[in-house]
This record gives sequence, C-alpha cells and structure tokens, in this order.
Amino acid sequence: MSNSIGKNIVFTLFGESHGGEIGIVADGLPAGLAIDNEFIKLQLSRRRPAGSISTARREADEYRIVSGAFNGKTTGAPLCLLIPNKDVRSSAYEFLKETPRPGHADYTAAVKYGGFADYRGGGHFSGRLTAPLTAMGALLMPILKARGIDISAHIYSVGDIKDKPFTPTALEMETSRQGFPTIDEAAGERIKEYIKEAADNGDSVGGIIEIAVTGFPAGVGEPWFDGVENSLARGLFGIPAVKGVEFGLGFGFGNSTGSQANDAFSLEKGKVVTKTNNNGGINGGISNGMPLIYRIAVKPTPSIYKEQRTLNLVSGKEEGLKIEGRHDPAIIHRAIPVAESVSAMVLCDLLCEQFGKGCLLQREVVKL
Amino acid sequence: MSNSIGKNIVFTLFGESHGGEIGIVADGLPAGLAIDNEFIKLQLSRRRPAGSISTARREADEYRIVSGAFNGKTTGAPLCLLIPNKDVRSSAYEFLKETPRPGHADYTAAVKYGGFADYRGGGHFSGRLTAPLTAMGALLMPILKARGIDISAHIYSVGDIKDKPFTPTALEMETSRQGFPTIDEAAGERIKEYIKEAADNGDSVGGIIEIAVTGFPAGVGEPWFDGVENSLARGLFGIPAVKGVEFGLGFGFGNSTGSQANDAFSLEKGKVVTKTNNNGGINGGISNGMPLIYRIAVKPTPSIYKEQRTLNLVSGKEEGLKIEGRHDPAIIHRAIPVAESVSAMVLCDLLCEQFGKGCLLQREVVKL
Amino acid sequence: MSNSIGKNIVFTLFGESHGGEIGIVADGLPAGLAIDNEFIKLQLSRRRPAGSISTARREADEYRIVSGAFNGKTTGAPLCLLIPNKDVRSSAYEFLKETPRPGHADYTAAVKYGGFADYRGGGHFSGRLTAPLTAMGALLMPILKARGIDISAHIYSVGDIKDKPFTPTALEMETSRQGFPTIDEAAGERIKEYIKEAADNGDSVGGIIEIAVTGFPAGVGEPWFDGVENSLARGLFGIPAVKGVEFGLGFGFGNSTGSQANDAFSLEKGKVVTKTNNNGGINGGISNGMPLIYRIAVKPTPSIYKEQRTLNLVSGKEEGLKIEGRHDPAIIHRAIPVAESVSAMVLCDLLCEQFGKGCLLQREVVKL
Amino acid sequence: MSNSIGKNIVFTLFGESHGGEIGIVADGLPAGLAIDNEFIKLQLSRRRPAGSISTARREADEYRIVSGAFNGKTTGAPLCLLIPNKDVRSSAYEFLKETPRPGHADYTAAVKYGGFADYRGGGHFSGRLTAPLTAMGALLMPILKARGIDISAHIYSVGDIKDKPFTPTALEMETSRQGFPTIDEAAGERIKEYIKEAADNGDSVGGIIEIAVTGFPAGVGEPWFDGVENSLARGLFGIPAVKGVEFGLGFGFGNSTGSQANDAFSLEKGKVVTKTNNNGGINGGISNGMPLIYRIAVKPTPSIYKEQRTLNLVSGKEEGLKIEGRHDPAIIHRAIPVAESVSAMVLCDLLCEQFGKGCLLQREVVKL
Repeated sequence: MSNSIGKNIVFTLFGESHGGEIGIVADGLPAGLAIDNEFIKLQLSRRRPAGSISTARREADEYRIVSGAFNGKTTGAPLCLLIPNKDVRSSAYEFLKETPRPGHADYTAAVKYGGFADYRGGGHFSGRLTAPLTAMGALLMPILKARGIDISAHIYSVGDIKDKPFTPTALEMETSRQGFPTIDEAAGERIKEYIKEAADNGDSVGGIIEIAVTGFPAGVGEPWFDGVENSLARGLFGIPAVKGVEFGLGFGFGNSTGSQANDAFSLEKGKVVTKTNNNGGINGGISNGMPLIYRIAVKPTPSIYKEQRTLNLVSGKEEGLKIEGRHDPAIIHRAIPVAESVSAMVLCDLLCEQFGKGCLLQREVVKL
Repeated sequence: MSNSIGKNIVFTLFGESHGGEIGIVADGLPAGLAIDNEFIKLQLSRRRPAGSISTARREADEYRIVSGAFNGKTTGAPLCLLIPNKDVRSSAYEFLKETPRPGHADYTAAVKYGGFADYRGGGHFSGRLTAPLTAMGALLMPILKARGIDISAHIYSVGDIKDKPFTPTALEMETSRQGFPTIDEAAGERIKEYIKEAADNGDSVGGIIEIAVTGFPAGVGEPWFDGVENSLARGLFGIPAVKGVEFGLGFGFGNSTGSQANDAFSLEKGKVVTKTNNNGGINGGISNGMPLIYRIAVKPTPSIYKEQRTLNLVSGKEEGLKIEGRHDPAIIHRAIPVAESVSAMVLCDLLCEQFGKGCLLQREVVKL
Repeated sequence: MSNSIGKNIVFTLFGESHGGEIGIVADGLPAGLAIDNEFIKLQLSRRRPAGSISTARREADEYRIVSGAFNGKTTGAPLCLLIPNKDVRSSAYEFLKETPRPGHADYTAAVKYGGFADYRGGGHFSGRLTAPLTAMGALLMPILKARGIDISAHIYSVGDIKDKPFTPTALEMETSRQGFPTIDEAAGERIKEYIKEAADNGDSVGGIIEIAVTGFPAGVGEPWFDGVENSLARGLFGIPAVKGVEFGLGFGFGNSTGSQANDAFSLEKGKVVTKTNNNGGINGGISNGMPLIYRIAVKPTPSIYKEQRTLNLVSGKEEGLKIEGRHDPAIIHRAIPVAESVSAMVLCDLLCEQFGKGCLLQREVVKL
Repeated sequence: MSNSIGKNIVFTLFGESHGGEIGIVADGLPAGLAIDNEFIKLQLSRRRPAGSISTARREADEYRIVSGAFNGKTTGAPLCLLIPNKDVRSSAYEFLKETPRPGHADYTAAVKYGGFADYRGGGHFSGRLTAPLTAMGALLMPILKARGIDISAHIYSVGDIKDKPFTPTALEMETSRQGFPTIDEAAGERIKEYIKEAADNGDSVGGIIEIAVTGFPAGVGEPWFDGVENSLARGLFGIPAVKGVEFGLGFGFGNSTGSQANDAFSLEKGKVVTKTNNNGGINGGISNGMPLIYRIAVKPTPSIYKEQRTLNLVSGKEEGLKIEGRHDPAIIHRAIPVAESVSAMVLCDLLCEQFGKGCLLQREVVKL
C-alpha cells in the first residue's frame, strides 16, 4: 500500500515539494458527511509556518476538492483534495544530487529509486505533504466531534522544558486550537524562546507531542495487528521526523510493577471506567472507553544552517555542508495538527471496522 | 486484516489459549526455502517458560507444518504451521466471566465481542499465540542470515537495571542465543534476582527490549505508511504487553538538537555508512544500510497474585481480585525470540517489496 | 493476497491434495454467529464424489473447527477449519514430475515454483481444496438465510442438454438441496447418462452452472473494482475449471439492443422492482434488489483415461500419456455447492462493507 | 479498496462526469519508467467520441501528471494523472433525481448513497472516468511492449456481425491501432452501419470484445484468488457495461469434452508451447506462455432516445422516459482502448508479484 493507509476508508497521499499540486484521495467515506471548510482552514493555518521560528516558505494552502463532494457533503465516491504549490525555489536544491543532507531521506531515496527521485525540496519526502494530510484529518475531526469524540494534541516537551500533561482520566477535554499549542502558556513562551535560541545558533530542536482522544467508545481495535496501538503507530510513524510512539505509561512501564501499572476497573455514573489510565485507554489492542493517551517523539529538523559533514556521492570525498534554503528550526508546533489529523484518519477507519460506516453519519443508514 | 500482517507474504495468526490447536498461515513465501527445524526448536525453547521466573504451564510446542512444505522446502503454496495445546486447565478461568482482570483484555474483549469471546486463559489474546509467531519468524531467520541479515534482541533494562546496549554502528553482530538474553551476564543475574523478588511479592515487572538488525541493505521501506518504522511498529505492537516502540535515539530525540542528532555520511571500505547511528539505520522510512536499532517497552504482566481491585460486571460492585491460575512474574525474557520473529516477518515482507520475492532464495529465479 | 479473498472477512485457503490436512481461516467473522453443523455436513456430502460418475477417492471430510468458535458460536477471533486427508495414494502421481497433464496446472506450477511445488495429486491446485471452501460457505449460508438471503445453484447445461433455467424475476426461491442438482429431474437423468457415456469413452465433459441469489438487498457492491460483479467473478474464477462468468444476459448482451436489454423500473407491493432482469440484479456494480443471476462455465475435467499427447520435460520429446489414478468424468454436479459457497463468502463480505458486520447478527450490536 | 485495483501497483480512480477534474493515482510504480506521451494521446484519441456513432460531448482530454514523474520518467512516488472536464452541461440531468434511467446506476447509487451521490451525468459511474483509466494503461503498455508483451483488442462481434477472431496460437501479434478496431475492415464497415441504424432508431447496441496478449511469460498469476483469470476479471468487470468475461473457449467449454478441450504440450524452437490454445494461455490460474485470449461482453448503452418506462421515485408512479442529453448508440469501439488499458494495469501488477518490480525496468535494479 505504501502511500495509502486505512482499510474501510483508504487514504492515499501523493505529491512532491516542488510539483504543481499535492493531494490526497479518501476512498470509502460514507455519503452525506458535511464538510466544514472553516475547520479545515483553521487546521491548515495551525500547520502553516509563521513568525521567526518557522521556514520562510509561504504557501496559502488553497485546497480544492475535485471529487467526492456535492452540495457541501460527501457523495460516497472517492474524495480527492488538491493543494497547489506556489512558493517554490527549486534552484536552491541542486546540491542534493551530490551531497545528501545528514538526517534526511536524500541518500536513502537515491538508493531506493536509483537516482530517479525528484530531489527538489525533499521531493515526495517533504513535510509539505503534511498539508493535505492535515486537511483530510480536519475534514474528519468535526464528524468525530459530533459523535462526542475529541482529538487534541499539545507539545509535551522540548529539550528540558515540559508542558503540563493531559489528565489521563479526564473524560472530557477542553480543547483550544488557538495560539501556541501548549496547555501551560508560560511553558509555551519558554519553548518558543528555546527554539529561537537554537535558530540563532543555526541549529534545530526536537520534542515530544502528547495526544489525547476523549469520548472514544470501548470495543474498537482489531487484534493482533490492527489494534488501536498498531494502527495509530503505523500512521504516526508516517509523519516525517517521528521516531517513537508510546501509549499510556509507554517506556515508563519498563520501570514499573504490575501492582502499580494495572488500571483497576470501577463504575462512574453508570459507565465502566478505570481509576488510573496507565494503559492509555487500550487493553489488548482494544479501546476500553477511557481517553486514549499517547506520545510521539519528534526528532530535530535535520536541515540546519550550521555546517555539517557529509559525503559527496560523486567524488567519494567527505565535505562540509551548509544548508542554505529555507527551513524550520523546529517543527514540533507545526506537527500538532498533523498528529491530530493522522489520529482522526486512523480512528475513523477503526470505528468503521467495528460499527460499520454508518457510525460516522447523522442521517439514518439503510438497514439490511 | 486484523490477524494478518504483511503484503508480499501475508501471515495470519489464529487460535486460543485453550483451543485444540493454535497456528499461523504464511501466504506468499517463495518456493524453495529450506526449513531449519533445529532453529525453530531453539527459538521455541527460548520462548518456553522455564525455572522459577515463569509460569508453571508447560507446553512441548510440538509444531507440525501441514501445508506449503515438501521435502523440507517451501512449495510456494500457503504454509500452515500448527501447535497443539496440551497443558490446559480451563476451570481456573471461570471467574473471568464476571470480573475482568485489570490490565488484561478481558473487559475490552467482552465489550467488543458481545460476550461471545472464548475467555478461557485469555482466549485469542493469550501470550500462548506467540508460540506460532515465534516458530514462523524462526523459519525465516536462517533465510535472512544466509543473505547476511542478522536479527538479535536482548533485555535493555528491567526496573533500574540496564544491560550493556548494542553498539549502534557495529556492522556485524556476535549473536548468542544461549542462556538468559542479556549481553552482560552480571546484569542478567541481577535482573533474574529482581524478577524473583517481584514474584515473591506476588507482583510482576516490565522492561525494555532492544533489537538490532545488521546486514540489512539500504533502500528498503515504503514511504509514507509502509516505511521500516511504520511496518515494524505495526508488527511489534501486536506482541502482547508492548506499549512503546522507538527507533535510534527514539524519545531521546526530544532533548537533542539537529547538530547533535544528524548522522554524518562517510565512506568505510567502499561502503556508505554514517559515523553515528542516532536514526537507527532509517531515514525517511527507508533503511540506509546501517544497523536497524530499536526498542520496545513491555509492560509488567497484568496477572499477579497480589490482590487487586476490579469491578464485578454482573453485580456492578467493586471487588477484590486475587488471580490464582499460573502466570509469569515477567515475560520480558520470553518476549525476546518473539520480538526477533516479528521483526523477521516484517523485514522479509519489506525486502520482497523492494527486491521481489526472489531475493529470499538462493536458487536462480525465473527472470522475465 | 493470493490464497485469500475478502476484505471485511478475509478467507485464507491452504493445503494440498496429499498433505496431512487442508483448511481455511476466516478472519473478521463477527462474534455470535451460530454454526449449523448439519448444514455444513449436507453441503460437504453434496460435493463428495458418489456413484459411477465420480472419482473413486473417498474422503469422509470430517472437519474440525480449531479456533474462533466457542459454545457453538463464533467468537470474533479467526475461525480455522481443518479437514484431514485420508484416502491418499501418492505413488500414482510420480509421472507428473516429467510429463505435465494437458489442461492441468502441472506445467505452470513447475515453471512458477521452480520445481518445488508438491505435485502429488495436483498439490495445492487440487479440487480437493474445494472441501474447506464448501464448508466455509456452508457455515455462512444459514446466516444469510436467516436474513432472507437464499443462494442456490443448478446445472444450467451439459453439452446440448439444458436444465430449466431460474426465473430471473422470481423474488423468492424454492431451494432443494436433495438429489442431482437440476431443476428438471428429466434433464438431470439425461445429463447423468451423458456423463456416463463420456466416462465409458475414457473422456470427460464440461458444463455451465447457473446461480441465483434471492432476497439480496439493494445498494450492495463497491464500484469501480469491488462491485458485485467484480467480486463474485474474482471468487468464482478461483474454483478450478471455471473459465467464464456472466451476469444476467451476459454474452447474450452482445446481440441485443438497449431497448430490449434495459430493465424498466416498477413498483410491486411497495418495493422497487424491475419488470425484466436482464442485468442479473446489478446496475453499475451495485445490487438493485432483484435476484442476482449469474452463470459460470466449467471446463471438462482435464484428467481423462484416453491417451493424450504431451511433452516430456526431461527428454524434450513428445509422448503419449494415459492418466491412470482416480478421476471424475465430470465435476459439474460436485461444483454446485462450491459455487454456492464461494458466492456466500463473497456476498457476506460485500454486505459487511455496506452495512457493517453487525448486519450478519441477530443479536443487538454495540452502537457508537 | 473499492476504487482501487492492484497490489504491487495500486491504481485508484476518482472523479465525476461533471466535476472539475477526474484522475487516477498509481502507487507502487518503480522509478525510472519512461513516459510515452504520444502513446497516451493515441489511446485517449481512440477512446474519444468521434463521428456520428458517438456522443456529441467533446473533451480534449488534456491530461497532466502532477506527481510521481520527473524529467519524463517515473520517480517511484505515487503518480497522479488529472484530466479536466470541460464540455459539461449539467442542467440536462435534473430529471435523474426523480426518474432513474433503466439499465443505469441511477437507482442503485441513490439507494446506496442515500441521495447524496452526484447524479449529474452519471456522476462517479460515468464512462467519462474511463479516460484516466485509458491514460494510465497507455502509460504502461509501451513498458510492457519493450519487454515483448503486446496487448491488443478488437471488436469480436456486434449483433450477428463477427470480426475475424485472433489466432489463439500466434505467438506474435501484428497490432494496428489505426482506424475502426476490427481485424477485418469489411466487418468493421458493416458494424458501423449497424450502429448507425440503431442510432437512427433512437436505440443502442451491445457487442463482444476480444483481447489477446502475446509475449506474456509463463508462471504468472497467484492461485487461488489472484490468478490471471480472477485478476483480469476483477478489473474488466470494472469497465462500465461489461457483463461477462471468458477465457479461451470460455462458455464454449460447456459443450466440449476433455479430449477436445485439453491443450497438448509441445516444443517449438526450444520453447514449450501448446498445440491448441483452448485454455487461453492459462492453466490453474497461471500463465503458460501461450497468448492470453479472452473476451468481454458489453451491454448496449442504456441511454437511448427511444421512450422507455421507468418509475418516478417521488410520485411512486410509472412514467415514460425519453433521455435527451448526449449519448452513444454504441460504446463497443470506444471500449477497446479501455479494455487494453485495464489489462495492462492488471498484468503489470501480476508481473511484479512474480518477478519483483524490477521486471518492468530496463535499468539495472539494485540487488540484495
């Protein structure tokens, strides 16, 4: 499948950083879903670079839906969303043919595709493709929200600076999608400062993102290989720069005991809950009705202004490399809506697997 | 797909803890692969419980291959491997119908399958099913080894006790599959002691496993959603109790900068290498020729003798629960061959995607 | 996928003619489906060779379900059904290594699998594997029947002898699964006579099977490539010896006009129907609520006693070949329950795609 | 998958008759395939309506490839090809909301998609979408041709008029893609005349298409469910109006005996051949090296000017319906390049399954 993800709804991503258009096709969306363009625009704006802590490339992200929608609703036919690339400066990338950037896919793509890959701006591997991903997830999030399912992400940490974490047992979420994506505003300010310092040094920083999903029903996820964890992990590792995924206590489980880690069942307002939520809302790959809580590790943007060492693949000699072009000293804040969107795509697919596609609809579904 | 994984070779797992037989089907194996039964037996024995730090359930794991093999080699038809269950005591699990065990899939399976799941011994969610998984991976590992690809795992840590880590830039591996799976024998002794203590307390412990794959060629992995990381993560999260997967520095990237984390390219004996291997051998989802290095977080076995609190689903009352039965105070050591096997399954599939199925064969392949 | 079919329910077939066991795994069956063993036995008995117009190989087909069922109902976990091979005489097939049988897969399997295929009795290509296929479909047919969906097949023609065809507009079906599978008993007698004559000549005969599905709801089938026609065709061509599939008028459309062929819509007892059913109940790949009507062409069994010409692959010389062993002068009657079963498998999968898996259940499904 | 077909190369079709753009994505094409735009244009022109026997809708089919190609070659990233719709008159289709056209998908789409489908011009079900299908297959055909594989189709019959059939044992093909697609020019003239007569009567005609593939290597096709027959049938039934698919003798097998139908093996210039080719080049679902020969039944275009009866879904009353708009009295000739293209797509996918993706390339592939 490679560039596709999902089984009941198959999402296929295409495009390159400097191609005419990039896009995504969703095949399997039920008919009659209302499309909330304002929310799509909001999420695209959150992903868009802005201010001094982002790349100078500016794209309006004026998407258009060329199929699968009619009178503002999905039709049941494949929905294709396209976004034109406009602010493109390909000449800045000619060096990539000889000297692969450390930490990037330049070298591996060259090996894999035998020199035929479009190397301009990272080509198909560019973070630019997270724009259609973001748009597609943003199309789905209001539909989930209408069914009580809320997805939200924030910066968990950058360097040693930690945001206030999500409360794992909170059954509802106060979502804010305004401003810098931290819960604690002061932590956000420190993180921005930290990123600016890195930028001033010609360097970049990584971080950790935490995602919470509230209102997600119990019983969803398909063991052994399409459980909630397998599926989210498969999707989230698709986001460029993600190098780790953990659920609940995650790697913290390595230093815990069963009596500490097990989540005791209880009853709250007639609903089965767990008193703690160390398992991040998932047992045996299946959701248990508690919030899904998970984190992803985002590596520092590999493109930095600082000089690095690399190999000239033509001469076979090591060389110094200073990457000019336009790049981000951190993508952690821009990756927030992307993580939300990938989560929405994966979870919609799993919901359809358990409840049928009708579960996404407000209209009455044809019954057998 | 749910219980299947793989695209070029599709592996389908079936069975329950207390059913007559458990098994796995591999569809898509090329014809002519030699089956090394000694290695399969070795890996099964590593997974098998033994000594005081394991469950008392004793299974001989006498597997048989009922299809897809002929004269000791694969035929190209689906290979089905069956293992009988023999040491089964179902009566010990009657309580599960009312009181789900914290940390287990009892409750989520009950919700998902509407009370029809086979609850005996955890049913389809039982770690018992890792026996056919282990056998299947063990069938593949010698085939990979013959092509220079070596997969090995060890206990990275349990509690605060750390084993010596793999050297991420070592291009070859000294694999030992004897004894307790640590590199540092002394650390292994301390870990065993620590597990015994937990067992004596009626408790259990989690840990972290590190896996290395050497000799894996560059250019393998299919972005965006079937890259090496997506694919391994999808498989590894299938192993019961795994709650985190990270590659290279993993969550450590959150506290690093681009200039620290980027792996500079270099040439060594005519081969492109990286001087460091913070990316765990993967850039942009594609292998770069360096060792694949990754870790999985394994939560403490949820079944403990210590009394826990749970909810009686029939009465709606909270209750104390002491799980009698037979269970492991730790599965971290038994999960080692399982992690190797799942890795072998996933990586064989990705190799076939890039090079065609003929890449697994020593015989000459029919050419177009 | 190769040996698997289905998306919501994935069926994977394995085994060889002379292996220890053959079987099938169904992954994705909803939990709580009652298993009607009497019906499975009935369908297996219809497929089983009997009398003078069938092979002398006699198998009891004593299947067992080793996973995915508990207390007589499906559990939601993969259901694996196994059938042992007992009446096996492998020595009769040694000649296959050198001289491929015309019309069989011996030669193509030898090329494809490089000489590693299990050639005994046709190996994985044997009609023997239709036994687990039949059993699996027979597990599903009562479930469909309980929802008003009835699948039935009969011999449409053998040579010039034609059975009475199904009435394509009849909304209900009087199904008989007793005796020789023709609607017109006299035609059945003539067909049996005709087969016996062929058998006496050391020859074999082909025929055409017609299948009807009544009670199938409108709106099922996924254009463009998983419509009812695409999906049934993909499944039906899996039955050995099937060389043609047509829906409604089928090849007769080639000699018709739009004004003749179009099916006018009408209302009957409050239900939208078509006055004719030339389209076999399918428009644009989607069911329209009328009976599905389709036919498959079954070629004569390639194994005949009459001497044929073939090539000795070792000597490179042409040779005469008389196939001894045990074989059928016709399989058309034995293929009837197989065609029903494959139809049931495919249609269950499509129903789940449109309505969710809950549509197969009588119990109340968990709702989002 | 629905609108996708293929496993190694996944083709996803999207768009509607009156949407802004229609298109197709191919994910999994190997890098380095040269794109022959002249051939794509030729095939699109063969599909394009022309003269008095076609619809008056005129589309230039000015496709553009927006991703996956660079410097005239594929890059290995998903290739998206878009075609704008220009000659659109939506107002002519308002009646469809109430009165479904007999033989069309209007009614079934309304049921399936609950009234949300884009009904204008048949929406997603329109034959207009065969334009991107044709273009994609035309991209692949020169690549196959460079490896000796030639795909060609002609009109086998319309009404009682028969073209000269392909010689099933001819190992090479004289392909002509000029003029009306019959082998016998006189038959072509009679067919055109016959279509004009139907058009004059306000009626339409069906027909049968025969396809031959020469140079296709032995050993391709994946039993039981992804054999050459299953796969081609699944694809070909995706072409609107196709209601039957048969291979070799096809339905003629129903009236033949084993001794007549079996194809004896022989040796010709060192190559294993069969003396006859009744099996259409396929045994057991696997190609045998002989030409693939198959036919598809194409029903008469359902849109006719003649008055028909239908049901008004709003009033529940039967009504007369005269379809004005613009439509084809026959699509059999326009379906020829579509059938070639779908064949090319399916066969490329199967070749990759057997030989790896490198088999499509002329460049040297990276070896394991």
